[in-house]
Amino acid sequence: MDRPTLPKGTRDFGPAVMAKRQFILNTIRRVFERYGFQPLETPAMENLSTLTGKYGEEGDHLLFKVLNSGDFLKDVDPASLAAADVRKLIPQIAEKGLKYDLTVPFARYVVMNRHEITFPFRRYQIQPVWRADRPQKGRYREFYQCDADVIGTDSLICEAEIILMIKDVMNRLGIKGYTIRINHRGILSGLARLMGAGDRESALLVAIDKLDKIGEEKVKEELRANGFTASTLTSLFELLVFTGTSVEKITMLRKQFSGDALAEKSANDLEEVLNLVRGFGGTESGIELDLSLARGLSYYTGCIFEVRIHDVAVGSVSGGGRYDNLTAVFDSKEKSSGVGFSFGVDRLYDAMEELNVFTEEAKIGSRVLVCHLDKDGLSHGLGVVQALRNQGVAAEIYPDSSKLKKQLEYADRKKIPFAIVIGSEELKSGMLSFKNMNTGEQQSRSLDQIISTLNP
Amino acid sequence: MDRPTLPKGTRDFGPAVMAKRQFILNTIRRVFERYGFQPLETPAMENLSTLTGKYGEEGDHLLFKVLNSGDFLKDVDPASLAAADVRKLIPQIAEKGLKYDLTVPFARYVVMNRHEITFPFRRYQIQPVWRADRPQKGRYREFYQCDADVIGTDSLICEAEIILMIKDVMNRLGIKGYTIRINHRGILSGLARLMGAGDRESALLVAIDKLDKIGEEKVKEELRANGFTASTLTSLFELLVFTGTSVEKITMLRKQFSGDALAEKSANDLEEVLNLVRGFGGTESGIELDLSLARGLSYYTGCIFEVRIHDVAVGSVSGGGRYDNLTAVFDSKEKSSGVGFSFGVDRLYDAMEELNVFTEEAKIGSRVLVCHLDKDGLSHGLGVVQALRNQGVAAEIYPDSSKLKKQLEYADRKKIPFAIVIGSEELKSGMLSFKNMNTGEQQSRSLDQIISTLNP
Repeated sequence: MDRPTLPKGTRDFGPAVMAKRQFILNTIRRVFERYGFQPLETPAMENLSTLTGKYGEEGDHLLFKVLNSGDFLKDVDPASLAAADVRKLIPQIAEKGLKYDLTVPFARYVVMNRHEITFPFRRYQIQPVWRADRPQKGRYREFYQCDADVIGTDSLICEAEIILMIKDVMNRLGIKGYTIRINHRGILSGLARLMGAGDRESALLVAIDKLDKIGEEKVKEELRANGFTASTLTSLFELLVFTGTSVEKITMLRKQFSGDALAEKSANDLEEVLNLVRGFGGTESGIELDLSLARGLSYYTGCIFEVRIHDVAVGSVSGGGRYDNLTAVFDSKEKSSGVGFSFGVDRLYDAMEELNVFTEEAKIGSRVLVCHLDKDGLSHGLGVVQALRNQGVAAEIYPDSSKLKKQLEYADRKKIPFAIVIGSEELKSGMLSFKNMNTGEQQSRSLDQIISTLNP
Repeated sequence: MDRPTLPKGTRDFGPAVMAKRQFILNTIRRVFERYGFQPLETPAMENLSTLTGKYGEEGDHLLFKVLNSGDFLKDVDPASLAAADVRKLIPQIAEKGLKYDLTVPFARYVVMNRHEITFPFRRYQIQPVWRADRPQKGRYREFYQCDADVIGTDSLICEAEIILMIKDVMNRLGIKGYTIRINHRGILSGLARLMGAGDRESALLVAIDKLDKIGEEKVKEELRANGFTASTLTSLFELLVFTGTSVEKITMLRKQFSGDALAEKSANDLEEVLNLVRGFGGTESGIELDLSLARGLSYYTGCIFEVRIHDVAVGSVSGGGRYDNLTAVFDSKEKSSGVGFSFGVDRLYDAMEELNVFTEEAKIGSRVLVCHLDKDGLSHGLGVVQALRNQGVAAEIYPDSSKLKKQLEYADRKKIPFAIVIGSEELKSGMLSFKNMNTGEQQSRSLDQIISTLNP
């Protein structure tokens, strides 16, 4: 028999990794819930009619398609089969696909349930998604997304709350150095108009978006190829890399945008978001107004965010923004402005490993192993292990009558921090031998004493 | 645009349902962890070579197959394409499938990681699985399984612990009336030998397994068709439906099986499991030794379990048993006896709804909504909502400047139990209006008083 393998780009998460991932996910979940967000789960499979055309042509290719059950060739048009025309065959043999992100299923849910939902709707969703991307370091074909969105209001309070939630999550994860970059799509289109290139806004967006990766010179080159003159580029970059406090940046923008009401409003929005953060009792530390933040060709229309952790090269660990109309792809009559953001668990995990900030809290496993020297010790151990469990202590009893050495080795290899040893002496004295597996120190203790040592 | 739909047999879980499901899953997870089980997650997709042939021919049909990415017809043999030969085409166009249960992926994980795993290995796994079954009431194409297994030991302590975990979960879920039926595969094969039908053991198993569904008469009919005589059936059913305490049943079995060492050992095992339950401090209440329990044609070889809740018609909510060799399908050299069981979340959910035992604990959402009568009230509210959150209270502030009526309606429809109202009077007095949304009662309270009311 061949040794079994995992599909390319997928992973098993064993106990140690799972415990750390659960710690991250539970932290995020708790913060979302503290801010009034409620959970939603949608199925792994969606109809391909729901998914197709939502992520561009490239995205359509990256959708995993699920073969129809039974005789999937039954209703296939013989011509496309004979021609082996893959493009024509797919919709005939595959009705369903695996979800590609959490946003489109969320929009579908809202459209299907709009009469039952109370708006503004605050939902979070933590689930895996699938993309048939070429696997590489840090890029997987199955990975979790953690999204939170509020739809049905354009209040900037939501933007401010997103900033607060990001700070709260980072703080609880023990990540100290990070920057939340914020910008506004209206600033970028304002800049395009200011440069007399209102018609080339998306070329500008695409180029600026690469600033981080390819640097200023290459971005300028790309823009020159798109017809931006040398002098325009000089003025543009003066604004993009303008240094100063947020107040100074906003003052500068307001001056530059004077007369362009739409662009002015964007600057005012950013100012208001920062004011609201302060109103909530937050500070501006860790927040940077970055006029060159673009967030790709996504559907954002208002404020945009992106979070990077200092001193680790994992890319952005969180991002999001405001969009005008989440559900338009399904229902053009429906208008639902919203704002959302998302955490990247894999990147947070890698960053936390690199920064070495996982604590004891990010462990799942027995706190104590009950060991026994003979049958009577084992019998007595049953009551001991159960008493520990009843007091909320994760505990196990070694199930076989093995030598003590083997039992302790088991505790050691599983990194169980404490062991209780029960033999005839312990049965006589009514006390238990309590061993600290890290130090090797062993003491005689009553069960009650042990429970109060282990109970949090 | 067509109104979007969900694929057949799949479901969205909105906030209210999710909260109840999370309550069930977290309860199960906590009990598993208390007993020293550690989490594992495996990918949704497995290679079809891993899944195929593990669930019988019927199971192979029910696997969801994932179409290869890119030009999936590139390497297809033209003859099978021209012949539209579905059976031959599948392995050529689909390498991967969605997992059908958690057992086979667990076995694959153990085989792939056996050198890193410390045995006995106690793992739990809570994940969705997929089956292309015909959807019907209570049967879905995507559903969660919650498995816990210990492999690498044949100690009956594990069986006793499974019974204790089932009791613990039921107790924490608030389910009072239930029966844990236990039996042993060796009893059933002993009965077959006792009836002189050792060669028709699986026919006996299949028939007995239907006792619940089709009743004694039809089972007898089926067995008669398989060559069991009338007098054999009489003696068989005398044993199967023997009433008495567990001790009486075991005494009876031991007498009947005298001389059949294998069958005697099965009776002794069952007795020992019950002794161990008592040794752990548990009682026999809710446990029933049921000699007619068979658990289908599964791979069990030792003790088997099944749990039913009284007064609800949802079927068994938990089940499991001991198996001889989990990993044999992948590696015939490897021998890993183990025992495992599983909870059915959907059935537990349905039963709890029917019994009306979900409590306030099974709710996720804000405990309080901060409402505001004007701009100053909103400004002040920002600090109030944040103070509540910082004290661990899930809270939100109404994001728009709407009429109070609309804000309170929002709280009402979202079943948020409390509201704080802030207007000019509250700003003057420094107190807050605190409204109980259930009773309508409204009182003037300080922020500290409100926090101590809401903080658990």
